[in-house]
Amino acid sequence: MTDFFAGIPQIRYEGEGSSNEFAFRHYNPDEVILGKRMEEHLRFAVAWWHSFAWPGGDPFGGQTFDRPWFGDTLELAKLKADVAFEMFDILGAPFFCFHDADIRPEGATFAESKRNLEEIVDYIGTKMEGSKTKLLWGTANLFSHRRFMAGAATNPDPDVFAWSAATVKGCMDATMKLGGANYVLWGGREGYETLLNTDLTREAENAGRFLQMVVDYKHKIGFQGTILIEPKPQEPSKHQYDYDVATVYGFLKRFGLEKEVKLNIEQGHAILAGHSFEHELALAASLGILGSIDMNRNDYQSGWDTDQFPHNHPEMALAYYEILRAGGFTTGGTNFDAKIRRQSLDPEDLVLAHVGGMDTCARALKAAARLHEDGSLEKARAARYAGWETPEAKAMLASSLEEIEARVLAEAINPEPRSGRQERLENLWNRFV
Amino acid sequence: MTDFFAGIPQIRYEGEGSSNEFAFRHYNPDEVILGKRMEEHLRFAVAWWHSFAWPGGDPFGGQTFDRPWFGDTLELAKLKADVAFEMFDILGAPFFCFHDADIRPEGATFAESKRNLEEIVDYIGTKMEGSKTKLLWGTANLFSHRRFMAGAATNPDPDVFAWSAATVKGCMDATMKLGGANYVLWGGREGYETLLNTDLTREAENAGRFLQMVVDYKHKIGFQGTILIEPKPQEPSKHQYDYDVATVYGFLKRFGLEKEVKLNIEQGHAILAGHSFEHELALAASLGILGSIDMNRNDYQSGWDTDQFPHNHPEMALAYYEILRAGGFTTGGTNFDAKIRRQSLDPEDLVLAHVGGMDTCARALKAAARLHEDGSLEKARAARYAGWETPEAKAMLASSLEEIEARVLAEAINPEPRSGRQERLENLWNRFV
Amino acid sequence: MTDFFAGIPQIRYEGEGSSNEFAFRHYNPDEVILGKRMEEHLRFAVAWWHSFAWPGGDPFGGQTFDRPWFGDTLELAKLKADVAFEMFDILGAPFFCFHDADIRPEGATFAESKRNLEEIVDYIGTKMEGSKTKLLWGTANLFSHRRFMAGAATNPDPDVFAWSAATVKGCMDATMKLGGANYVLWGGREGYETLLNTDLTREAENAGRFLQMVVDYKHKIGFQGTILIEPKPQEPSKHQYDYDVATVYGFLKRFGLEKEVKLNIEQGHAILAGHSFEHELALAASLGILGSIDMNRNDYQSGWDTDQFPHNHPEMALAYYEILRAGGFTTGGTNFDAKIRRQSLDPEDLVLAHVGGMDTCARALKAAARLHEDGSLEKARAARYAGWETPEAKAMLASSLEEIEARVLAEAINPEPRSGRQERLENLWNRFV
Amino acid sequence: MTDFFAGIPQIRYEGEGSSNEFAFRHYNPDEVILGKRMEEHLRFAVAWWHSFAWPGGDPFGGQTFDRPWFGDTLELAKLKADVAFEMFDILGAPFFCFHDADIRPEGATFAESKRNLEEIVDYIGTKMEGSKTKLLWGTANLFSHRRFMAGAATNPDPDVFAWSAATVKGCMDATMKLGGANYVLWGGREGYETLLNTDLTREAENAGRFLQMVVDYKHKIGFQGTILIEPKPQEPSKHQYDYDVATVYGFLKRFGLEKEVKLNIEQGHAILAGHSFEHELALAASLGILGSIDMNRNDYQSGWDTDQFPHNHPEMALAYYEILRAGGFTTGGTNFDAKIRRQSLDPEDLVLAHVGGMDTCARALKAAARLHEDGSLEKARAARYAGWETPEAKAMLASSLEEIEARVLAEAINPEPRSGRQERLENLWNRFV
Ligand SMILES: [Co+2]
Ligand SMILES: [Co+2]
Ligand SMILES: [Co+2]
Ligand SMILES: [Co+2]
Ligand SMILES: [Co+2]
Ligand SMILES: [Co+2]
Ligand SMILES: [Co+2]
Ligand SMILES: [Co+2]
Repeated sequence: MTDFFAGIPQIRYEGEGSSNEFAFRHYNPDEVILGKRMEEHLRFAVAWWHSFAWPGGDPFGGQTFDRPWFGDTLELAKLKADVAFEMFDILGAPFFCFHDADIRPEGATFAESKRNLEEIVDYIGTKMEGSKTKLLWGTANLFSHRRFMAGAATNPDPDVFAWSAATVKGCMDATMKLGGANYVLWGGREGYETLLNTDLTREAENAGRFLQMVVDYKHKIGFQGTILIEPKPQEPSKHQYDYDVATVYGFLKRFGLEKEVKLNIEQGHAILAGHSFEHELALAASLGILGSIDMNRNDYQSGWDTDQFPHNHPEMALAYYEILRAGGFTTGGTNFDAKIRRQSLDPEDLVLAHVGGMDTCARALKAAARLHEDGSLEKARAARYAGWETPEAKAMLASSLEEIEARVLAEAINPEPRSGRQERLENLWNRFV
Repeated sequence: MTDFFAGIPQIRYEGEGSSNEFAFRHYNPDEVILGKRMEEHLRFAVAWWHSFAWPGGDPFGGQTFDRPWFGDTLELAKLKADVAFEMFDILGAPFFCFHDADIRPEGATFAESKRNLEEIVDYIGTKMEGSKTKLLWGTANLFSHRRFMAGAATNPDPDVFAWSAATVKGCMDATMKLGGANYVLWGGREGYETLLNTDLTREAENAGRFLQMVVDYKHKIGFQGTILIEPKPQEPSKHQYDYDVATVYGFLKRFGLEKEVKLNIEQGHAILAGHSFEHELALAASLGILGSIDMNRNDYQSGWDTDQFPHNHPEMALAYYEILRAGGFTTGGTNFDAKIRRQSLDPEDLVLAHVGGMDTCARALKAAARLHEDGSLEKARAARYAGWETPEAKAMLASSLEEIEARVLAEAINPEPRSGRQERLENLWNRFV
Repeated sequence: MTDFFAGIPQIRYEGEGSSNEFAFRHYNPDEVILGKRMEEHLRFAVAWWHSFAWPGGDPFGGQTFDRPWFGDTLELAKLKADVAFEMFDILGAPFFCFHDADIRPEGATFAESKRNLEEIVDYIGTKMEGSKTKLLWGTANLFSHRRFMAGAATNPDPDVFAWSAATVKGCMDATMKLGGANYVLWGGREGYETLLNTDLTREAENAGRFLQMVVDYKHKIGFQGTILIEPKPQEPSKHQYDYDVATVYGFLKRFGLEKEVKLNIEQGHAILAGHSFEHELALAASLGILGSIDMNRNDYQSGWDTDQFPHNHPEMALAYYEILRAGGFTTGGTNFDAKIRRQSLDPEDLVLAHVGGMDTCARALKAAARLHEDGSLEKARAARYAGWETPEAKAMLASSLEEIEARVLAEAINPEPRSGRQERLENLWNRFV
Repeated sequence: MTDFFAGIPQIRYEGEGSSNEFAFRHYNPDEVILGKRMEEHLRFAVAWWHSFAWPGGDPFGGQTFDRPWFGDTLELAKLKADVAFEMFDILGAPFFCFHDADIRPEGATFAESKRNLEEIVDYIGTKMEGSKTKLLWGTANLFSHRRFMAGAATNPDPDVFAWSAATVKGCMDATMKLGGANYVLWGGREGYETLLNTDLTREAENAGRFLQMVVDYKHKIGFQGTILIEPKPQEPSKHQYDYDVATVYGFLKRFGLEKEVKLNIEQGHAILAGHSFEHELALAASLGILGSIDMNRNDYQSGWDTDQFPHNHPEMALAYYEILRAGGFTTGGTNFDAKIRRQSLDPEDLVLAHVGGMDTCARALKAAARLHEDGSLEKARAARYAGWETPEAKAMLASSLEEIEARVLAEAINPEPRSGRQERLENLWNRFV
C-alpha cells in the first residue's frame, strides 16, 4: 500500500442529495437499468497513460506533475502499477486500458523492451488476481518514440513496419494473457505531414496488410476479444488515415475486413473531424462496426485534442442513447482517454476527475434509458418514415427510373412537405435529461 | 445578339507582359504542354447557375443583380441562354455545365417542368450547333424547391424519391441529348438537420438504391459519359452523407458501385471537410475514382461555402500536379462552380472573374507540368520508399506477425529515422511555381 | 383573433412532472429566485424577424413556410402584428424586439418607408395597450436591401451613410414611442469582403462618428433606454468590425463612448468568434459593458450562424451565472434571436420552439441561482487569489521592476505551483445543474 | 568553428535561373527596391528557440533531433551559440531573436539563472562583435517552467508575478546590452484554462500594471527600442488575453499605453484568431501600432500553431503590401518564429528551411513593391471613397441624425449601389505576384 492516495476514501454512491466531494451522486453500480446493472452497461475503464504516465507537458511547457514513480526502471514501473490498482480500488473501476509504453520501461533493444513488458505483465496479472478490475483493452504505443516519427505500419522504412508488427504481436499476447476484452489500434502517426513526400497508395496497402496480419494472429492465438480501430482525423499528423468512422469503414471494405474489425470512437476525435459524437456512434452502429468508446471530450473552442473528462450530461446522453439503440456494449465499454489539466497537481484531482466523469456518464445513461423505455422518440421516427413501409414504396425501390417517371406523370405526383418537428423532438429529449 | 456584354471584346491570349484587363496572360489554349493542348488539359467549364441564375442573395440580404433575363418564362430562359452563349464565346470556353432549374422555368406540375426542360434543351442544342462550346456535365437541382427540404433520394416521403428519380431521368436524357461528357449528382440535402428524426440506415439504403438506378439507366440508354458524385460535408444540411472522398468511397464499396461512379471534387468542399484540395484529389486518384473538379475556392476564414474564383496559383498548382500524376482528365474537366461576389454588379465583373480564374488555372497547370517534366519530386518520393522494393520487404508483407517478430529478434532490427525533408521539397516546389 | 394558432392553448407552468407538450416545465414567471420574480430575471423577448418575417430560405433553397401574412402591403403587415401578439399572449412573453423591415412594408422611397413605419408603429402601439408584452428593443435593418451591400455607416457612398442615419433616427423614434428598454445596432455589413478595396481607417472613423450621432440623438430626445451594439465576427461579411466583445470595447474606447454604449451578446456569435458564450459575458461584465443577450445557439459543427433555440441547460447555466454575478439585467433581457428550422412548418413548431427555449433558460437560471446562493464557487475563486490581498502584494503592484528584482533576490523567492482544481470545480458545478 | 554545418556553403544570390538548392533565387540583400536595400526592407531574424533549442517533440512524441549542444550546462549553451552564429553567417542573416531560456541553462534559483544569463549574454556579445548579425529582439520565456503554469503577470500567486517581473527586467537589460531593436512580450499563459477559477478583472489589472512597469523601466534605462506585444488567441491556454490586434488595442487603450507599445504580429496567430494575416497587419497599421512580424504560417487544416516556414509567396505579398503601405518597418523586422518539421532531422534541413523562407519573403516583397509602385490599387481604392472628399459629405459627418434625415427627405436621396470589383482587383493583384 503506497501513500499516494493517503486520506482519500473509497468512493461510494450517496445519491443526488450528497454534497460529499468523495462520493458518487449518480453512479450506482448495482442499480438495475433496462434489466442490466449500471456497471455492466457502462463498463468504465481507467486509462493508464493519462492517469499514471503523463507528466503534464504541453507544446509550450514541460512536466508539472511530481509523481514518485516517474523514471525508467522496472521497480518504478511496479510502483506505478501499485498506485494504479489503488486508484482502481478507490473508484471501484471495473476495467483499465494500457499501452505497452505506459506500463514498462523502454529497453535499449526490442528484445529488452519485450522482456520488460513480459515482466510487468506478469506483475499486473498478479495484481489483478487480488482485484475486481479487469482489462478492457490493450494497445501498442507506435507513435511516441522517434523511430515512429514517419508512421508505423505506413512508414517508408520496412524495418519500422517490422518493429511495429513485432510490437503489436507482443501487445496482443499481453492483452490475451491479462484476459483483455478487446485489442485497440490507434494510428497515431499513420498519416502524413506533407503530401509532397507521401505515397498514399503504398501506405494504404501496407496498412491494410498490417491489419490483416493482426486479424490472422488474433485467430491463430484464439483471442476472443474484438479488434478495434480508433479513428482520429489529425494530430499529431497533419492528416491521419483513420479520419473518422466513414473513412475507416471504407478502409475495412477495401481490404475485406469489415466483419473482423470494429471501432473505438472518441468524442474528442469526432469533434476534430467535424462531427458530433452521437453522429459517429449512430453511423458506426448503422454500419455494424460500433465497438467501444473513449468518453473524453474536446473543448469546442480549441482545435486540438484536449482529452478532458466529460462534464455535460445532456450531451453524453445523446451518446448513450445511440449505444442503447444499438443494443449496448458487448465487449466494448466506456474508457476515459482523459487527462486531468496540467494544473491539477494533486492526487485528489486525479481521483475526483474520474468521479466526475463516471457520475456524468451515469447520469447520462439514466436519462437515455428513460427515453429509450418511454419509446416516444422511436415512435416519432418510425412515423416519419412510415410511407416506406407501403407495398407501393417497396415496389418503387425495386423498379427503375423510367418506371418511376411513368408513375409520377400518370399519377401527377406532387409531394407536399411535412414538418420535421426538430424543436418538438428537442423538447421531448429535454423532458428526459 | 443581346447587348448585355456590349463593349466587351473577345478575350485573347496576350502573354504575361500584357496589362490589358480583357486578355489572357497565361491561358493560351493552343500551347502544347506535355504533348497536349492546354485547352484539352484544362477543359474549362462555365457554370450556368452561378453565372446566369444567381440573383446575388445571401442569408442576410436579397437580390443585388439586375439581369434582363430574370423571371419565370420560357422567353426569358431563352434570353438567358443567348447571353450565356455570348459569354462562352467571349471567353472561348470549351464547356458549360447546368442544372435543370438553371435553364428552364419551374412548371406547376412535373409534366410542365419536363416540357419546359425539353423545349429549352432543344433551344440550347440549336445554339450549340453554332458554337464550339460543349457540355461538360448536366445535373438535377434536387435541393432548392421546398419539396426537397428533407432530402431527395433520402427523403422520408417516398413521393419525393419518386419525383427525384423522375427528375434525374429527365436530366440524364437532356445531358445525353446535348452530348454531355459526364452526369453529376450533388446530394445537396441528402443528409440531416438532426439525428433525432433521422433513420440513417434506411436513408443510406435508399440512396444506394437510387444510385444503382442511375447507373442502370445510364447503361440502358447507352450514355458514354461518367457518373460523378460531388462530395460536400455540410451546408445546407448540418451533415451531408457524401462528406468527402473517403466517405463516398466507402458508400460506393458498400453498394458495389466503385467501378461505376467517380467523383467531382470541389476545392471549397474539401476545405469544409477539413482537407486540402490536393489531399482529396490524391486520395481519389489513389482509389481510382478521380473524375472531374470544381475549381472554386472557399475563404479560409469563413465556415461556409463561398464559391469564389481561384486566385492563388501555387495552391492550384498542387491540384493540377495531382491531376497530371493521375494521367490528366479523361471525361472530366475544370468547372468553375464559382460565383462573383454579390457586390460585383457589372457585366465586366462576370467576364473578368472567369478570365482571372482561367488564367490562374493555366498558370498553375504550367507550373505543375514543369515539375512533372522535371521529375525531381517523383524521384525523391521513390527514393523515400525504396526499401519496400527489396525482396526482403516483399517477403515480410507476405508473412505474419510471428515471423516478423522472430526476424526482429534474430536480426536485432533497430531502425534509425531518416529526414522527411519537407522544407527541401517545398523549396523544390517553389522553384517551379 | 386570427386562426393561425387555432387549437393551441395558452402555455402555463405545470412543473417538471408534466408530460404536456404545451406547458412549461421549468419556467414559472412568478416563482421568486434570489429575491426577484423569474420573469423579471429572464425578461424574455420574441424576435419579430425570425418568428414572423423569415420565409425559411437558406443559400441553397427558397421559401418553405406558407404564412397568410407574407406579402408587401400594410394590411398584411397588420395581420402579421395581430398574429405576433397572439403568440406573445400564448407564451406570456413579457417582451418583443423588431427591425423596421420586419414590421412595415418597404416603400419605393425613404419617405414612403418612413410613413409605413409610422403607421405600423401606431398600430403596434394600440395592440400593446391591450397586452402585457413590452418592447425590449428596436433596431434598424441596414443589411438586407441591396443599397446596403457595401455597408451602412461604413459604406463608400456617403448617400448610404445618409440613408442609414435617417433610418436609425426613425427607428429610435419608433422605439421611444413604443417604450423600448434599449436600442440595438448590429453591424450586419459593417465590415468588408476584401481588403483590396477597403479603407479601414476611414470606415472606422465614419462608424465612430455614426455612433456618436446615435448617442447624441438619444440624449436629445431623452430616450432612457440603453444603446447596445451586437458583436459578430463574420457573416454576412467576410470580416465584421464588431468582431467580439474585446473588439467593440476597443472601438468604444477609441471614440470615447465606453460609458454610453453597452453590448447585446449572442451565443452564436460568440462561438463564431472562437469564444464560449460565458467568456463573452464575463468579459463584458468585467469591462462594464454587459447589456443584454441573444440566447440563441449555433451548431458546434457548422461554421455559420444557425440561430437555433437553446436546448442545453448546463451550458446556458454558465451564461446565467455570469449574468447573476454581474448583478442581473437592468434594461437588458433574454432575446431569442432564434429561428425554427426551415423544415419546422407548423404553427405548433413556432410556439413549442419558444416553450423549449424558455424552459431551458429557466432551468439554467435556477441552477445558476442555486450555485450563486451556495457561494462555494466564489469562495474557491477568492481563495485562489487571496495572496493578492496582502499588503506585500499591494506594495509590489505599486513598485517597479528593479524593486521587485531586488526583493526576489533578497528573499530568494521561488514560487511553488498550486493545483488549479479545474475538475473539482466542474464537479461542484455539476452538483447544481 | 564547429562541424555541425560541415559541407554546407554560404548561401548567395544566384537568381531565379539557379537550380542550386544552396542558393537564394529571390533574396538579393543589396538589390534596391523602392529606394531601399532589400535587406533593410525585410530585416530577417533567425529565432534561437525553434532553430537551436527545440528537440522535436510534440504532444504525442518526444525528441527527434540529436544535437551535440543539447544539455543544461553553460558549456553546451556556448556551443549552441557558436553553432547559431555559424548559421547566421551561412545565411547572411541580419538579425536574430531570443528568449532567456533559449540561450542560458536554467539555474536552481533566480539568482543562478540570472548569473547564467549574464554570462551567456557576454559570450553572445563577444560573438556579435565578429559578426554582422544584430539583435532584432529579446524576450523572456514566462511559460515553459511549471511555475508559470497558471500565468506570469496574471498568476494568482503574487510570487510568480514577482519572479516574472524580475525576469523581464533581466531580459530587458540583456536586450539593451546586446543592442536589441525591440523588446517583445508574448503572453504564453496569460489567459485561462477555465473561467470557473478565474478572476478576469484582477488578472487584467495586474497585466496592465505589469506592462506599465515594463514601459517605465524602458524609459528609466533609456532603451531606444520598441516594446512589442505578440497577440495569440489560444494555445497553450484555452483563452489568451492578447487574443488579436483589436483585443490588444483595447487593452492598451484601457491602460493608456497605446502610444508606448506596438505589436509583433504572427501569421499563424492571425489564422488561429480567425483572421487573415493581412487583416491583422492592416488593422494594426490603421491603429498606429504595427511594429514587427513573425512570418511563420500555420497549416490551414490544423487547429494548432504549426509554426511553419512560409512557402506561398502570393499570400506573403499581401502581407508585405500592407507593410509597404504603412511605410515599412522602423525598428521591426521579419522574424521566423518557425520550426522545421520534427522529421527534418538534418543540418541541411535547418539551413534550407531558412533559405526557402527568406526567398519566399523576398519574392513577395518584390511583388508587393511592384504593385505599390504601379499605384493602380491605391487609385482604385481612392476612387471608391471619392464621395467622402466632397464638402457635402464632410458637412454631413459634422451634423446630426435629424439634419441628415431632413436632407434625405428633402433631396429624395436614393443611393444606387456600385460594383465592388473584387475579382477585377484580384486580377490586378495577380498581374504583380
Ligand atoms: Co484524443
Ligand atoms: Co482515444
Ligand atoms: Co460549393
Ligand atoms: Co461544386
Ligand atoms: Co446570429
Ligand atoms: Co443576434
Ligand atoms: Co506561433
Ligand atoms: Co511568434
